[in-house]
Amino acid sequence: MDRDLICENLSVGENGHLLFAGQDTVELAARYGTPLYLMDEDLIRKRCRTYLAAVHQVFGSTSKVYYASKAAAFRQMYRIMNDENMYVDVVSPGEIYTALAAGFPLERACFHSNNKTDEDIIYAMDNNIGCFVVDNLEELYAVDRHAAERGRKQPVMLRITPGIDPHTYEAIATGKVDSKFGFAIETGQGEEAARIALSLPKIILQGFHSHVGSQVFDSDVFIRTADVMLTFVAHIYRTYGYMARELDLGGGYGVRYIASDPELDIAASISEVGEFMHGKVVTLGIPMPAVSFEPGRSIVADAGMTLYTAGSIKSIPGYRNYVSVDGGMTDNIRFALYGADYTVLPADNMRAPRDMRFSVVGRCCESGDIIQENIPLPAATHRGNIIACLTTGAYHYSMASHYNRIPNPAVVMLREGTSYVAVRRETNADLCRLDV
Amino acid sequence: MDRDLICENLSVGENGHLLFAGQDTVELAARYGTPLYLMDEDLIRKRCRTYLAAVHQVFGSTSKVYYASKAAAFRQMYRIMNDENMYVDVVSPGEIYTALAAGFPLERACFHSNNKTDEDIIYAMDNNIGCFVVDNLEELYAVDRHAAERGRKQPVMLRITPGIDPHTYEAIATGKVDSKFGFAIETGQGEEAARIALSLPKIILQGFHSHVGSQVFDSDVFIRTADVMLTFVAHIYRTYGYMARELDLGGGYGVRYIASDPELDIAASISEVGEFMHGKVVTLGIPMPAVSFEPGRSIVADAGMTLYTAGSIKSIPGYRNYVSVDGGMTDNIRFALYGADYTVLPADNMRAPRDMRFSVVGRCCESGDIIQENIPLPAATHRGNIIACLTTGAYHYSMASHYNRIPNPAVVMLREGTSYVAVRRETNADLCRLDV
Repeated sequence: MDRDLICENLSVGENGHLLFAGQDTVELAARYGTPLYLMDEDLIRKRCRTYLAAVHQVFGSTSKVYYASKAAAFRQMYRIMNDENMYVDVVSPGEIYTALAAGFPLERACFHSNNKTDEDIIYAMDNNIGCFVVDNLEELYAVDRHAAERGRKQPVMLRITPGIDPHTYEAIATGKVDSKFGFAIETGQGEEAARIALSLPKIILQGFHSHVGSQVFDSDVFIRTADVMLTFVAHIYRTYGYMARELDLGGGYGVRYIASDPELDIAASISEVGEFMHGKVVTLGIPMPAVSFEPGRSIVADAGMTLYTAGSIKSIPGYRNYVSVDGGMTDNIRFALYGADYTVLPADNMRAPRDMRFSVVGRCCESGDIIQENIPLPAATHRGNIIACLTTGAYHYSMASHYNRIPNPAVVMLREGTSYVAVRRETNADLCRLDV
Repeated sequence: MDRDLICENLSVGENGHLLFAGQDTVELAARYGTPLYLMDEDLIRKRCRTYLAAVHQVFGSTSKVYYASKAAAFRQMYRIMNDENMYVDVVSPGEIYTALAAGFPLERACFHSNNKTDEDIIYAMDNNIGCFVVDNLEELYAVDRHAAERGRKQPVMLRITPGIDPHTYEAIATGKVDSKFGFAIETGQGEEAARIALSLPKIILQGFHSHVGSQVFDSDVFIRTADVMLTFVAHIYRTYGYMARELDLGGGYGVRYIASDPELDIAASISEVGEFMHGKVVTLGIPMPAVSFEPGRSIVADAGMTLYTAGSIKSIPGYRNYVSVDGGMTDNIRFALYGADYTVLPADNMRAPRDMRFSVVGRCCESGDIIQENIPLPAATHRGNIIACLTTGAYHYSMASHYNRIPNPAVVMLREGTSYVAVRRETNADLCRLDV
């Protein structure tokens, strides 16, 4: 068994080709061209069902799973989430527009962002957004004011920073007190926000939201967060007589980028978190609110893969070997941004020994344009080989740029043994469409 | 005098507004909306003329200045470069397409990239690219082959890595031996490439190219590079009887992002480099080749500015103050990528004391979405204020993403007291145009 087949939907065909969701990646590359984003729709749907079943079993049927659509947002993704009875988290008018264009009912969406403009608030409200996740007082007052102008009441959650450091990489740790997001409990600003929200005539306080970090594999992070947040909920209940209807614990469950990343049983983790919380509410003497989660990465990341064609091969004696591919930091910025780990495989030559180490680099004119360093590949790797980078379903298409005037790849979905284009490949003409 | 007015085209109006190229930035923000990229066309043209005059004076009229268009590539930029008799460096079919769409004669372009596909080579050749900057042997053979199929000869330069560490940040240092770019002299691969190029029937070896690093303020880096490269040119001359017609020293001259960055006199530096080189060729007993430079950042960076509207203001007692703006890492990825420095100014309130420190952060749902930390702004900064980030003409529009489904800002050019849209603002509908 090849330990680099890090996800259940990976296998190797008799022809030595990498199979993804049972389909031949080399044939997909030939059919749709490279670079190419593949997404396994069946796995995406399975992950949604896993989350929903776990949350409903542990917390009851009023609990929700919001797909954090910033991980990968395009029309077809919102259709899939709608099919699967998911809620979604949106962070911008662009995501709202896309969701609406896909027929997603915005009543099942919550609207995040540390900086919503008045136009954003009005746009969301006029399209019946389910809930604002209010990040700051200016927003809270603005939501109240715009709701009043429309003669309605608006449900909101307050984003609370519980002051927990999840011990993940700082750039993706958002629950600490010193954060651009939310109201800190420690400083009293969380309580103040709750008090003000309860006093505003057009605000319906639905509950509280927290998000602690990313790539979390340990239930303990969610348990510590739930501990702090339930204590806060109880404090607000005792002080103001307001019992939160919803407690959103955010996202953050990790996925496997490389073989040494742990395998996570999300249902089991949610069950552990639930066990703690059911005990905690008894101790606190409060009822259990509906509990929500906001997974993004753990729904779509390993349901994604990027296929490249190898171009130039370069061996610098005494230094390093390079294989350049026909994409790079334009379709995968995460190594450049975070030094992120990836598994990279020779998709058309999986049975050959991977007996040479390569830096797999992109085609951009920038030294930092690296997909991954120190990757074992067959020594005979040459121009035209198909190279697969795994676990690219989250934060790849959604973070893609046009640096070096490189068009975005297509996104192809794999469903029940067939494939279809979900996002068309960009052309050079597309790049110029806004140029005067 | 405000030391943060780091570029000659910055001043303050009687109304306390920041002026850029003499124009009121607050009025421009009102007219075109925010976030907004401004570019000072007059300064861009002036920089082109400074480079051309310096290079022609020091190295003669056959010397060239290639604008490194990856710094900022859109149709109008290529028109300006054409007007100014510049050559351009392109790095992808997308840049070639854009240059052609602007009527730029591709004969005056050189084509970079560590990974040109056969399709790229054919596309460039069929559009009469002036020169390939060949990065590896596979490309060299491919260019020869495709030229033969077309019954023509193709000029090329060879990209040589001189093995010089410019002591700049590793991610933007590209001239060291261990690089994805070019042929190293140290390993003998540079000489081997020259020997092969001279032997191929359809290759016209035009000369050699090197690029050492970015944000270079010291002539010494170019002098060391020229020293190594001229020695290499002389070695090839003595060994193979081939005298390079062109020696391209690449780009890399620095610009001021903050007040403590030095002011650079590019003409004086080119003169110093020239003085060294004129002496060196005498010592080596070779003629002086045409000498080229490839500036990108130093042509356009401080001719650019980004205007934002302030949104939420957050003070976390004991920690930090935050001002969120209506853009972020989608229009400026450089702090997230490199921890890059920027000067950020209160464009509508330049006469007030800047008596409080803020983290200026973007609107993306990502903790790392920061424009700059520890920025002095007026304590009264509030929702609706206009915030300017300076020196954003290079690697901002060209690196922009749609993360969080945020559309790209417009690019507005300032010319002789007037303004016009060079790249239209993207809409939410644009974001969905490729979605199925």
